[in-house]
Amino acid sequence: MSDKQKKPQKPKARLPRGFVDRDAADIRAVNEMTAKIREVYERYGFDPVETPLVEYTDALGKFLPDADRPNEGVFSIQDDDEQWVSLRYDLTAPLARHVAENFNEIQLPYRTYRAGYVFRNEKPGPGRFRQFMQFDADTVGAPGVQADAEMCMMMADTLEALGIRRGDYVIRVNNRKVLDGVLEAIGLGGDENAARRLTVLRAIDKLDKFGPEGVKLLLGAGRKDESGDFTKGAGLDAAQIEKVLFFVGIEDYAASAADLSALVAGTAKGGEGVEELNLIGALVKGAGYDDGRVKIDPSVVRGLEYYTGPVYEAELTFDVTNEKGEKVVFGSVGGGGRYDGLVSRFMGQAVPATGFSIGVSRLMTALKNLGKLGQDEVFAPVLVTVMDGDAEAMGLYQRFTQELRAEGIRAEMYQGNWKKFGNQLKYADRRGCPVAIIQGGDERAEGVVQIKDLIEGKRLSGEIEDNAAWREARVAQVVVPQDELVEKVKEILGAQAEDRRRAGK
Amino acid sequence: MSDKQKKPQKPKARLPRGFVDRDAADIRAVNEMTAKIREVYERYGFDPVETPLVEYTDALGKFLPDADRPNEGVFSIQDDDEQWVSLRYDLTAPLARHVAENFNEIQLPYRTYRAGYVFRNEKPGPGRFRQFMQFDADTVGAPGVQADAEMCMMMADTLEALGIRRGDYVIRVNNRKVLDGVLEAIGLGGDENAARRLTVLRAIDKLDKFGPEGVKLLLGAGRKDESGDFTKGAGLDAAQIEKVLFFVGIEDYAASAADLSALVAGTAKGGEGVEELNLIGALVKGAGYDDGRVKIDPSVVRGLEYYTGPVYEAELTFDVTNEKGEKVVFGSVGGGGRYDGLVSRFMGQAVPATGFSIGVSRLMTALKNLGKLGQDEVFAPVLVTVMDGDAEAMGLYQRFTQELRAEGIRAEMYQGNWKKFGNQLKYADRRGCPVAIIQGGDERAEGVVQIKDLIEGKRLSGEIEDNAAWREARVAQVVVPQDELVEKVKEILGAQAEDRRRAGK
Repeated sequence: MSDKQKKPQKPKARLPRGFVDRDAADIRAVNEMTAKIREVYERYGFDPVETPLVEYTDALGKFLPDADRPNEGVFSIQDDDEQWVSLRYDLTAPLARHVAENFNEIQLPYRTYRAGYVFRNEKPGPGRFRQFMQFDADTVGAPGVQADAEMCMMMADTLEALGIRRGDYVIRVNNRKVLDGVLEAIGLGGDENAARRLTVLRAIDKLDKFGPEGVKLLLGAGRKDESGDFTKGAGLDAAQIEKVLFFVGIEDYAASAADLSALVAGTAKGGEGVEELNLIGALVKGAGYDDGRVKIDPSVVRGLEYYTGPVYEAELTFDVTNEKGEKVVFGSVGGGGRYDGLVSRFMGQAVPATGFSIGVSRLMTALKNLGKLGQDEVFAPVLVTVMDGDAEAMGLYQRFTQELRAEGIRAEMYQGNWKKFGNQLKYADRRGCPVAIIQGGDERAEGVVQIKDLIEGKRLSGEIEDNAAWREARVAQVVVPQDELVEKVKEILGAQAEDRRRAGK
Repeated sequence: MSDKQKKPQKPKARLPRGFVDRDAADIRAVNEMTAKIREVYERYGFDPVETPLVEYTDALGKFLPDADRPNEGVFSIQDDDEQWVSLRYDLTAPLARHVAENFNEIQLPYRTYRAGYVFRNEKPGPGRFRQFMQFDADTVGAPGVQADAEMCMMMADTLEALGIRRGDYVIRVNNRKVLDGVLEAIGLGGDENAARRLTVLRAIDKLDKFGPEGVKLLLGAGRKDESGDFTKGAGLDAAQIEKVLFFVGIEDYAASAADLSALVAGTAKGGEGVEELNLIGALVKGAGYDDGRVKIDPSVVRGLEYYTGPVYEAELTFDVTNEKGEKVVFGSVGGGGRYDGLVSRFMGQAVPATGFSIGVSRLMTALKNLGKLGQDEVFAPVLVTVMDGDAEAMGLYQRFTQELRAEGIRAEMYQGNWKKFGNQLKYADRRGCPVAIIQGGDERAEGVVQIKDLIEGKRLSGEIEDNAAWREARVAQVVVPQDELVEKVKEILGAQAEDRRRAGK
């Protein structure tokens, strides 16, 4: 502003698309949720660790789900050293960098969790933002699938800690090695088939959306949607399609395990994958989580390419009504898998790891639907109104306010233009203040204050529907010596709390 | 990874300069701090609101302290709509955008707080990062300085809530209008002197660093530092310098108020500024905060150009030892002021506002110095070791772990390569695990488990300094039926807690 350019145009106050402000209710709900999630992770022996929001672009790598367009989808920028840095797009790639950078100081297995914002520079849509919060847990330096089994149980415990009932969710587990074995068994092994394998994986991932018939088309010649748009298929023949559909259609893993072993027999890693699934099944059963909480389900794919073994997903199974008024299953709120290559891409040695991510906003939507948030109600402050603007009067108002606060009572002195007294009561009304304190010149001379019980006022005027009429209606009030102010306010707040208790709120 | 380019080079795992990872102790300390700060702000009647980390560049404006180089210091990038967006450099400019954008829905006065990361694209240095956390509180729509007085008292209460003793801090208040009045009185009014005024303000801001003699040089011809570098001065004459130094040297505001009024008599806003300071003084006194907690001090300048009235700063007054081994006053941990122009730059109307910002990392350093953090000690998990890798054995280990967790006991099953059992005990040692659970094949056959009390073990081996020797030393252990595992672990953890209590820790 000190530079003497021509006056700049008035800037427009708006946010870039896909970014949102968060209000008090939203922030308090997220704090309540993350505190409960953190409690479970701590109990499981995980500790927090956090990385910054900015990383070197090459350290993040290119692991976004849509791998057709590397580099796209990430906010990148050259820093003052002319090096490319990016806003992180997930919390896994930065963790891998952190572990590789501090490998000599870190004690393995390294069990950590973190919550934070991630960014996607892509077209936002309904419920799809360019900044959103993830809450991750990972175990690095854990070669065995017992670490994956633990992750699944921890996801189950987390959902229950948040108030989701057993039976209203399921943690589904699959194994990329088995998937790869099936693909190899139908002749899609080798580097030369990488692109076709990806098409098949994406087709399987659409099972929830299009059903087996739709997936059949996507595995074959292709599929036309309602709008007439055609998606080219993977070009598999009938026998190949049948094997894929057998695999993803397995409902009872234990009953089908032998058939599955036969299908992947002779492939590089298919048998190993089946064994891993069997061990996960045994561990889950050993801990009693096979009662529907954790379930082996070969239709789980998970988009990210970096997964190398078990993959798992937390799904909410109850119905919700979508924006079109249809009843739909709520669906996935998080998931993850084993990524044995992500740390070792920085290093000369293998560093096996597994972990998962919860989509905090999406899970919050689910919890709101279930009425599981907002238990910790916050009350609006007591309002100390301002009748006179001289130093003596204001000094007293300020003192009353501080005295209330010193006793732990939420309170504020009116900070708007005090000359319009009506605005002060309107403010108290809209803000939901429980009590207002008033002292005019005569009262000050007498050393007394008026205390209005605004909730009592609302209750007395319960039949008055019109807001303007309400403000004119009688409100319950008392006049007390100003030295008894705090005591009397406590008494009124106590009576209001008792009213709420009796009303069962 | 699917695209068939030549293999990329192994990326280097490192963070860009000025960015850091945060460890568990740091994260827990910040959580502990922010919870206490939040509690005070809520008690004062403030509610949380949060804005995203990314804003349109023009909406943020150019308000960084170093105004000679507009645009510099901010991370900016073109989004997919070709519009310039930036990472926020503070939390005030985004709040102004938020209020202007939602002006019709927002109830004024709007009292909010927020904690979050901000970014500066500038050369990092010791203790100077490119990503750091601020914790702000603001009242928007508050025309009177009673709102500024409230901010000062809230800062004082916040520092005390964090454990800083009365007398170890002071909140210092000044008023930009008085400063401007003094500058006008010595002939530096008007747009044409804007650059010189800035030089004078920067000179005053160096009072802590260079003392009155150094500032005198900076107000006059200029100052040469120890390295021989010369800083050009403001070029004031002796009479002008004397008036400025009288002003910034005022120790007892009440005693000097009349002289100050005389100095600024006839200036545009100097008198108004003195009156505002007088009212703040009266309010602070009315609430009893004039006991050294809040003090009017004309040497406070605050760098940001957007301040239009009162400015205030929280200073810790105790000594700390700096990196050179010298004793220095800890200094500022936060501050703010009135910014009546920041919301109205988006709008046709005036929207007065005031607020302050706490530098969370800096304050944390202070609290660590005082030993005021880490009250909520977190204990390491009970370790369930792995002796056998078959599904039956692992299923049991997993069950033990889940049973402990279900009773609220922090526990984990060893997730590294279990075949080297020595590594498991090393892990337990380094991690500080209180208890280890062991079950080999014979024990499994008998249905019993070994429980090692690792703290007892450490105590027994208190004289053994060598770590390797310790691991060979006897550790206290019991064998119990596996059904009594949880009960026995509880008993041991209880005994350990009792030991700590007796040791007065």
